[in-house]
Amino acid sequence: MQNFEFYNPTKVVFGEGEIRRLSEFVPKAKILLLYGGGSIKQNGVYEQVKNALYGHELYEVSGVQPNPTYDKAMEAVELIRREKIEFILAVGGGSVIDSAKFISLAVPYKGEPWNILTNHEQVYAEAIPFGCVLTLPATGSEMNCWFVLSRGDQKLSAGSPLLFPKFSILDPKATLSLDRRQIGNGVVDAFVHVMEQYLTYPNNAPLQDRFAESILSTLMEEGPKTLMKPTEYEPRANHMWSATMALSGVIGAGMPFDLATHAIGHELTALYGIDHARTLALIFPAVMWVMREEKREKINQYAERVLKLKGSDQELLQGSIRKTVTFFETMGLPTKLSAYQIKEDVIEKVIKRFEERGITLLGERQQVTMNKVREILRVALQ
Amino acid sequence: MQNFEFYNPTKVVFGEGEIRRLSEFVPKAKILLLYGGGSIKQNGVYEQVKNALYGHELYEVSGVQPNPTYDKAMEAVELIRREKIEFILAVGGGSVIDSAKFISLAVPYKGEPWNILTNHEQVYAEAIPFGCVLTLPATGSEMNCWFVLSRGDQKLSAGSPLLFPKFSILDPKATLSLDRRQIGNGVVDAFVHVMEQYLTYPNNAPLQDRFAESILSTLMEEGPKTLMKPTEYEPRANHMWSATMALSGVIGAGMPFDLATHAIGHELTALYGIDHARTLALIFPAVMWVMREEKREKINQYAERVLKLKGSDQELLQGSIRKTVTFFETMGLPTKLSAYQIKEDVIEKVIKRFEERGITLLGERQQVTMNKVREILRVALQ
Repeated sequence: MQNFEFYNPTKVVFGEGEIRRLSEFVPKAKILLLYGGGSIKQNGVYEQVKNALYGHELYEVSGVQPNPTYDKAMEAVELIRREKIEFILAVGGGSVIDSAKFISLAVPYKGEPWNILTNHEQVYAEAIPFGCVLTLPATGSEMNCWFVLSRGDQKLSAGSPLLFPKFSILDPKATLSLDRRQIGNGVVDAFVHVMEQYLTYPNNAPLQDRFAESILSTLMEEGPKTLMKPTEYEPRANHMWSATMALSGVIGAGMPFDLATHAIGHELTALYGIDHARTLALIFPAVMWVMREEKREKINQYAERVLKLKGSDQELLQGSIRKTVTFFETMGLPTKLSAYQIKEDVIEKVIKRFEERGITLLGERQQVTMNKVREILRVALQ
Repeated sequence: MQNFEFYNPTKVVFGEGEIRRLSEFVPKAKILLLYGGGSIKQNGVYEQVKNALYGHELYEVSGVQPNPTYDKAMEAVELIRREKIEFILAVGGGSVIDSAKFISLAVPYKGEPWNILTNHEQVYAEAIPFGCVLTLPATGSEMNCWFVLSRGDQKLSAGSPLLFPKFSILDPKATLSLDRRQIGNGVVDAFVHVMEQYLTYPNNAPLQDRFAESILSTLMEEGPKTLMKPTEYEPRANHMWSATMALSGVIGAGMPFDLATHAIGHELTALYGIDHARTLALIFPAVMWVMREEKREKINQYAERVLKLKGSDQELLQGSIRKTVTFFETMGLPTKLSAYQIKEDVIEKVIKRFEERGITLLGERQQVTMNKVREILRVALQ
């Protein structure tokens, strides 16, 4: 395995009823409550949070949308600066938490905060502390230090060791009102996060491999259960913890990464507004097919260990793509661009966007050339 | 699964050559170098550490022994108080790190520091920060907040959230001079740590189960390799990371614990001076046998998933105990008390020690009565 650093100081508080302990974890200070489109007002989480923080001085910014935007985040930055707010409580899913991370760095930032996303060389000395109440298990943002933000048709990511949440409360009960689309998206998002740290090349890291396979197997087992019985606690709890572990750094320690699926997916979101997870379901199976030679050994390992397949290389490849596609479709996510009426012109649109930013190579060994990206998109067409 | 809190802020720096980065992680302050019997002087680690800390003001306390003692630790406490030392660097295995944890709490402690181990109700506001350079993969102390210390024939444990190491440097190269006994002990210690968080009863936590099975499988695979080829980097690296993960809290999140093996094992160490890991190899298979009804479902799962056995309950039970015993013996650890010329009188000696401390029940459901302890010790005799 490669040398690595592992650091993750987020305190996770997991389980039914834990939101009521909120005041143990937030400081006695002015707090910004950041949330999304109001679903937390319908499912009772907003009220639980307010009750738990009775007596604290609260401010609110709501309306954070999926694919959260710079403009909305800057609303909060300005409020925090004006009112000298000292702590952010993000109540929601990845979009709200990602916004909180950007806000956290942006408040003390000198200059144009969008530069945080365009200039990754910067080292930060200061960030506003924040905590999370997670209502949508998917992105893993509740236990890592990275975020993604959009401005116009740009969708960029950044991170800093200062951006680990101080705490994240994960109450599976707070997620039981999610709709089928959100559940399916959440499971597939987590699944592909794991795949991008796993389906590369052998690296003599058997524990990390097995940890990754553990999450893949659990998501394939619990995902359909929690979609079929969306009000049951246990499958959702298992989905939730799997999604958090998927991007907490544990399975990626010492491992190569393949971010090609995310990179191409982000472009589809920017161009067509497709949900993030749904872009991954479109692209990942095509990456498996197009990069089948480079990934052969790990595809075989995935086929045998996670999917319990046997057979020749060819059979393992076809079987593993087929089973992965079936899993995504079972979770309600289309795996072909034609489901969104997207035609061949997508190919050059995506390439152009990469070229404009000077990106020419992707993948764990930088072997995904722009021609490979063309092939991947062609395979994903129908 | 049960509600849980997961918190582990230790920064792990893993891999060959990382010791040279030490000065990045320690403060510019007076540092106490704490180490053991001098093996780090023979294998070059002492020199690497001194070189990496060139220019720092260093103090030293050496001579920490396996089953580290209160008296030795108090030597360091007094030196730190006298010289106003601000940081402890533990260079060694679990004994040195456990001592550093006690010292860390003891320095600012008002009153008799041994009370830290006898009065677990105390909450601490202050501890001297410390970091680790790990030279013996085994106990997992490098990435958790617990420790064990002995005084006379008492061997007690304690912990505090203040006791996570600030950092731990894990360079597998620094462990390649270990002897066969240390390697075997280290692998079995980690294996039983996992078992105590896994082999209890079904708890609807499939991810935690699979993570545990991942470590068990990896230790069974890599353990014999690293014993056979003790100077090879990769198997030792995998052993090392498995041992750290075993007691980092990841696999125990939301799970019941069975500390019966450790509890009985500690008494054997106190009575006969047997290495900690070697007591676990004696007791754990006997616990499997005596508690076979209470643990049936998890024993079957272990047999099928980790050991790839098939058959009736009876066959799975016998096969799994046999394979576990074979694994321990392959690692060089005897599994019967007769190997140490210990006879039947051990039984009442151990019981007496439990009774003196008012301990009458052990195990994940407190079903290990003192009569069960008698049975366990009888099974372990020969």
